[in-house]
Amino acid sequence: MDIERLQGLFDAARNGRRSGLARLLSVIERGGAPARTVGQLAFPFAGNGYTVGITGAPGAGKSTLTSALVTQMRADDLALAVLAIDPSSPFTGGAILGDRVRMQEHALDENVFIRSMATRGHLGGLALATPAAVRLLEATGREWVLIETVGVGQVEVDVVGAADTTIVVVNPGWGDAVQANKAGLMEIADIFVINKSDRAGADDTRRDLEYMLDLSGNGETREDDDPIHGFVGPHWRPPIVSTVASEPSGLDGLWAAIREHRSFLDRTGGLEERRAQRREEELERIVRERLDERVRALRATDAFSSLRSDVVARTVDPWDAAGRLLDEPLAEPGAS
Amino acid sequence: MDIERLQGLFDAARNGRRSGLARLLSVIERGGAPARTVGQLAFPFAGNGYTVGITGAPGAGKSTLTSALVTQMRADDLALAVLAIDPSSPFTGGAILGDRVRMQEHALDENVFIRSMATRGHLGGLALATPAAVRLLEATGREWVLIETVGVGQVEVDVVGAADTTIVVVNPGWGDAVQANKAGLMEIADIFVINKSDRAGADDTRRDLEYMLDLSGNGETREDDDPIHGFVGPHWRPPIVSTVASEPSGLDGLWAAIREHRSFLDRTGGLEERRAQRREEELERIVRERLDERVRALRATDAFSSLRSDVVARTVDPWDAAGRLLDEPLAEPGAS
Repeated sequence: MDIERLQGLFDAARNGRRSGLARLLSVIERGGAPARTVGQLAFPFAGNGYTVGITGAPGAGKSTLTSALVTQMRADDLALAVLAIDPSSPFTGGAILGDRVRMQEHALDENVFIRSMATRGHLGGLALATPAAVRLLEATGREWVLIETVGVGQVEVDVVGAADTTIVVVNPGWGDAVQANKAGLMEIADIFVINKSDRAGADDTRRDLEYMLDLSGNGETREDDDPIHGFVGPHWRPPIVSTVASEPSGLDGLWAAIREHRSFLDRTGGLEERRAQRREEELERIVRERLDERVRALRATDAFSSLRSDVVARTVDPWDAAGRLLDEPLAEPGAS
Repeated sequence: MDIERLQGLFDAARNGRRSGLARLLSVIERGGAPARTVGQLAFPFAGNGYTVGITGAPGAGKSTLTSALVTQMRADDLALAVLAIDPSSPFTGGAILGDRVRMQEHALDENVFIRSMATRGHLGGLALATPAAVRLLEATGREWVLIETVGVGQVEVDVVGAADTTIVVVNPGWGDAVQANKAGLMEIADIFVINKSDRAGADDTRRDLEYMLDLSGNGETREDDDPIHGFVGPHWRPPIVSTVASEPSGLDGLWAAIREHRSFLDRTGGLEERRAQRREEELERIVRERLDERVRALRATDAFSSLRSDVVARTVDPWDAAGRLLDEPLAEPGAS
């Protein structure tokens, strides 16, 4: 798809054409040079929206919670988008969860744009595609973008890294389910949600979370120095919100916590700091992607075929072969 | 560590010095140029051993099974090594499982070399380190190398890709535990083990596995064409072995199945075919690793710092910046 065509779709999307937006998101999802072009088109118009990431173990009720949060936010008449991120199964190439049925109540709302995104094979693709998709959604008028992930693996953590506020959803008795990732979840959470909080054990879970926040040295939220806990400058302690998304109840509290975190980041300069860091990481990811493309182009060369045969036949060791290949000029593959 | 030092350690390891071997494995684990040198030293002497990968969901009893298998194989007086692979938590950088206590019964056996390996940060590191470690173990006299993984994620699957025979360990009622990965497990398994087969549901699990093997078009094992199932050439149907590793029982059957698979691969040329494919994949991984190193070296340049500041300040978009960086010559970083 050439740049004029992409520009045409982008202009249409800016004028409110959902089909143009949907097609550009597919371009971003597929990656490569066309995706980079879309990113560049959107870049000058983006940056005014706000992004909320929602992550947690499978079965924690993230979809239901996201849908209920959309309802809550729509009461304030906000233009929203939801990106539901499905990292593909490493084996089948298919999406693990396609169950977006809970979002259907918003399907007819013109001001809610809902979209699933999956990887198309290459690892790390979603970490690149998600910030580009968020920019496109912002550039076409969405004030809030919710990013919902399927699980709590590394891909999901990379993906919620694109969010301004990150919500970690747990359930009563969460300890067993996400044991290995506890430390990591503590690291990324701006807000904890205990969903299904009408179930037994919700109080224990809250105590458990508070205790772990204390252990990891979290003092109270404050905007000046906190000598007691050794913090210099502003510090945010993740609040713990209880919800029953299926009723729904507790969503007003969650929405208030999100706005409070946003306003904290705005006041303290934390928002610009986070976004600057994300742009830096994005730059590195893009460099890496383009180098990967060069490796793929390298694989199509005669020199590679010949050295590969030598390696397969064990006449050249793979390290030696790699060294010889990398002495070849790495041509930039043509835009596809 | 310079090449003379590595050569010295390698010579010592070839002469039976376990401390030399252990230090070289640490070098491989850390990756980079010294690891590649060790790989090159070992390459000419490797290829005579046989590698068995053991994977399955956490809690399936892989450690106990591996230990019992070692006992079984030692009865045949074989020189063995066990590599226990712990992919690091994506969050903490620490190993998830350190529980190698079940292997302690072999700690005093001179002919069993046991070693845990973990990533040191960079993703894909274990997929590179494992085949290099296997080569080193072969080059220093181990006839059999067992690779045991912690779980069944993508890293583990990449790692068991270094094995000649792959054993997938399940338990009665396995269906729920590894649901998402069933298709992938069917793909990589050469032998299925139903461990803890004294528990309820073992017969159902066996039926379940046989059914899935049928579904995926598996006919009986045979070495000529199989027109009924549409196979041309030799075909191996993974046998299903029942064990209770903690007793232990069933290990003779597992050991027989491993030898049978090896002999099948030997007779049909499948072994050389598998190994050739692995060398090809390894070449691509090494090329990728070296390009990654160049990216890291690039990050240390003034051009990168300057463009990064522009991206952070939003005066240049990240795609444009990446393009400009990649026009710079990518210097090979010095061996460290």
